[in-house]
Amino acid sequence: MSKGFSVPLSATGASSNAPNPPWHYVGDYLAIEFGADPDAVAELLPPGMEMGEGAGDCAVFFSDCQFATDTGEEIFEPAVSQYRECLVVAKAMFDGKPAAFMPYIFVDNDNSMIRGLIQGMPKQMGSIRMTRAFAVQSPAAAFVGEGGRFGASLSHRDRRLADARVILRQTTERAPNRMMARLINRRHFPSLEAAHHDRPLLDQMVRQKTRDVRISEIWTGDASLDVFQSPTHEFGRLKPRRVGAGYRYSFAMTIDDLTVLAELAG
Amino acid sequence: MSKGFSVPLSATGASSNAPNPPWHYVGDYLAIEFGADPDAVAELLPPGMEMGEGAGDCAVFFSDCQFATDTGEEIFEPAVSQYRECLVVAKAMFDGKPAAFMPYIFVDNDNSMIRGLIQGMPKQMGSIRMTRAFAVQSPAAAFVGEGGRFGASLSHRDRRLADARVILRQTTERAPNRMMARLINRRHFPSLEAAHHDRPLLDQMVRQKTRDVRISEIWTGDASLDVFQSPTHEFGRLKPRRVGAGYRYSFAMTIDDLTVLAELAG
Amino acid sequence: MSKGFSVPLSATGASSNAPNPPWHYVGDYLAIEFGADPDAVAELLPPGMEMGEGAGDCAVFFSDCQFATDTGEEIFEPAVSQYRECLVVAKAMFDGKPAAFMPYIFVDNDNSMIRGLIQGMPKQMGSIRMTRAFAVQSPAAAFVGEGGRFGASLSHRDRRLADARVILRQTTERAPNRMMARLINRRHFPSLEAAHHDRPLLDQMVRQKTRDVRISEIWTGDASLDVFQSPTHEFGRLKPRRVGAGYRYSFAMTIDDLTVLAELAG
Amino acid sequence: MSKGFSVPLSATGASSNAPNPPWHYVGDYLAIEFGADPDAVAELLPPGMEMGEGAGDCAVFFSDCQFATDTGEEIFEPAVSQYRECLVVAKAMFDGKPAAFMPYIFVDNDNSMIRGLIQGMPKQMGSIRMTRAFAVQSPAAAFVGEGGRFGASLSHRDRRLADARVILRQTTERAPNRMMARLINRRHFPSLEAAHHDRPLLDQMVRQKTRDVRISEIWTGDASLDVFQSPTHEFGRLKPRRVGAGYRYSFAMTIDDLTVLAELAG
Repeated sequence: MSKGFSVPLSATGASSNAPNPPWHYVGDYLAIEFGADPDAVAELLPPGMEMGEGAGDCAVFFSDCQFATDTGEEIFEPAVSQYRECLVVAKAMFDGKPAAFMPYIFVDNDNSMIRGLIQGMPKQMGSIRMTRAFAVQSPAAAFVGEGGRFGASLSHRDRRLADARVILRQTTERAPNRMMARLINRRHFPSLEAAHHDRPLLDQMVRQKTRDVRISEIWTGDASLDVFQSPTHEFGRLKPRRVGAGYRYSFAMTIDDLTVLAELAG
Repeated sequence: MSKGFSVPLSATGASSNAPNPPWHYVGDYLAIEFGADPDAVAELLPPGMEMGEGAGDCAVFFSDCQFATDTGEEIFEPAVSQYRECLVVAKAMFDGKPAAFMPYIFVDNDNSMIRGLIQGMPKQMGSIRMTRAFAVQSPAAAFVGEGGRFGASLSHRDRRLADARVILRQTTERAPNRMMARLINRRHFPSLEAAHHDRPLLDQMVRQKTRDVRISEIWTGDASLDVFQSPTHEFGRLKPRRVGAGYRYSFAMTIDDLTVLAELAG
Repeated sequence: MSKGFSVPLSATGASSNAPNPPWHYVGDYLAIEFGADPDAVAELLPPGMEMGEGAGDCAVFFSDCQFATDTGEEIFEPAVSQYRECLVVAKAMFDGKPAAFMPYIFVDNDNSMIRGLIQGMPKQMGSIRMTRAFAVQSPAAAFVGEGGRFGASLSHRDRRLADARVILRQTTERAPNRMMARLINRRHFPSLEAAHHDRPLLDQMVRQKTRDVRISEIWTGDASLDVFQSPTHEFGRLKPRRVGAGYRYSFAMTIDDLTVLAELAG
Repeated sequence: MSKGFSVPLSATGASSNAPNPPWHYVGDYLAIEFGADPDAVAELLPPGMEMGEGAGDCAVFFSDCQFATDTGEEIFEPAVSQYRECLVVAKAMFDGKPAAFMPYIFVDNDNSMIRGLIQGMPKQMGSIRMTRAFAVQSPAAAFVGEGGRFGASLSHRDRRLADARVILRQTTERAPNRMMARLINRRHFPSLEAAHHDRPLLDQMVRQKTRDVRISEIWTGDASLDVFQSPTHEFGRLKPRRVGAGYRYSFAMTIDDLTVLAELAG
């Protein structure tokens, strides 16, 4: 009988898109705070969330990541462990308290896409790129320090959706990912049954549990963010009205648990 | 409130990986019948299926496809509508009657991957290639007719998993996809909750309903099929012990419904 | 001693980006005639060419192609033989007679890129997509006939540069590629020597010789063409001022010779 | 009149595959020394080079790189500036003195491919991957220090050609790239003229001049290297007979000049 954590199930489980948790993640992040049209954020709200203080406040995170299971063997196989990601989070209220949700997240490795869907994230494939820092000086090298210059881009279906730039100025204690402190996702799986196309098999508000979180020194600086329209994606409706600070840091965490906060489907 | 058939949900649903059904499909297919080690097939069986007559009988299908919804607008945007696919089906018994299941299916467009998961298929991303036929003669052109030569390949995580070759000899009435006549899939979604890693949220034997099926003239001929081992996928365990006929045809169908045959999870 | 037609040279020549000619080509083409700003065309002229009658007349060709040598073995290995291409040709005068030149050509397989450079074409890599026709009817299928709908797109460095649409109306005798009847290319290889950055090692006006040309029935119809700006490419300066007819046909030819018309560098 | 350093030439030169030098490079490198069959190296020798002491001695270098011109603007556009590379160098004699040549080099960005051809390198496109180090600890993170684990892979035409692993043990003064101290390349451009297919237009032994070279602390350790056969590339003939040390370091340099050592073609 076939086994594994996710499809395809097989003799040993080695073919699965997502192996058995825990899932260890590490990444270099480039983040930019921005303000979108509050109506453009509101139209993305899942049931049970509502706009509150800071309506329209968003942040975009680009990252250059690696993944491993407990064996750590994935480190030796970058085709399995590496991926790049771009996600947006927006402020909202849930159960009367400040929270955040993630309307969009793009990734360039399908095994990360599947893990994300299992975590309750709305992942899809895209082309994500992010400038790297190096340990030697060069006109071609970004560096983590004052004056360090970083760029990032997101494309989907061969169209550029976002261009980002950050020039580092100083370190900060203010974690750019604090917006994700109470990040609430929507775990969702639609039904193909003819009568149930509007009644997903799975539709829950969930919160993933992170542990073994580590964050590097955080650098902040000036940022620019351009968002472009596409006929095949609504990302462009989050066009920035104002762009705040940019951030660059490294971050690690482990995920192997999740809490269901609310059932949306029956 | 956000809407759409699948995540990401958005203002109009236009960002979804999978739009609202019906889903219309059309493709050129290259298929090869082969016999694998019956034990290698048995270890891939889902619960409730068992080996029967023709144990080890398999077929591999490569295809060069397009997808559209009822609007048909996707035809103008090949980045959305086009994909290539490679899948394997194997004979088995379900409820005491001959059936087939699909242990593996690879695709090169994430929106097809997501539609497939919703249909109950164990889709993952790969690199699939297939020779094309042309309307003019050339040493570089395959053609649908006696002597027409076609190749196909499958790679996953930068490793070649399969090489296929077919040389067409004559037309046939014997549909190569008759093995899929009673194709039974496993719709599956794992649980990230710590105590439930071995209890999927969704685990069902299902059968998708196809309608508006059209098939072209079917050509058959000599085939070869090489399957390679990979440290990151068990596809290679289906190494052919014998290789049967090859087929080339075009096929169209529409899918917007599915029947649940059995619940595997509670 | 290593051998081969192009680098990398090796024991048998099998590693070469481009094998020994002849090179046999076949492809399905989607072409659109359009008029660009004559100044935008003039600024792309190579030395010795000048604007003449029909200044600004251009055509864009998208194609879905295969390549083979005399052995024809490449047909079985689509990773080698297949590629998609997008090119623009513009009218100009050479030696006082009507001619055409090709300011831009994009391809998605590096072996095609290298063959093109050797043929004198300014090839670079891009993402090119083109709707395919199928032998069965489907809302997802284009077809070669009245009402057949085709789309195509070009992207470079993750930015969309062009979107094209054609709806077929009737057959025509007027070959869309007649603009390429006297196509003159510039074979060019720059010098890295510090004092010679502005003096290429190779800079010639050339004309490739085609033989064994075959063309299918040609369908023509209504077309639209959108061209987009990019900060990393000047393709967008050829934005259409008017869009003419669209065409769809298949075409094959063989290339193994070239004539030098003029030396530009010494 | 169009301008630029390399094709495509355009109004401002901004469309060129390779912009005007100088070209600034920076990269993280994973290198492994290995011994190949001396006959397999000898058959790759360019004219004028011969085997000498250390026949069969080779090294493979994987790298994760960035490129910029003097403006440094490319840093903000990773789709232009980033690439990954895998190359092999082998010991040989030139003019009676120890030297090295580079039989193979693969890269994943066409603008790097074109710059390489201009530098005299036999570049072609491939899929290259290399584990990254991060500034925070994680089971998913490599790190530059004792016990740091790195993997790398090379694929070409959807087939894996090489797998590499290095586990760092200590720092070293012995630069792994000393083999490249007298690296001699072959600048080559074939002729398509029918009578000259065996007489390249350009065929020279050259040496690129590097300046502003910077290298980080060098870590060394245990290595493994697997090389695989492919029907479409002869890379596999360099299968290691012995595998030496592995290295990990960062390296930067600038290139804008080259010396011709010998003319091979007339």
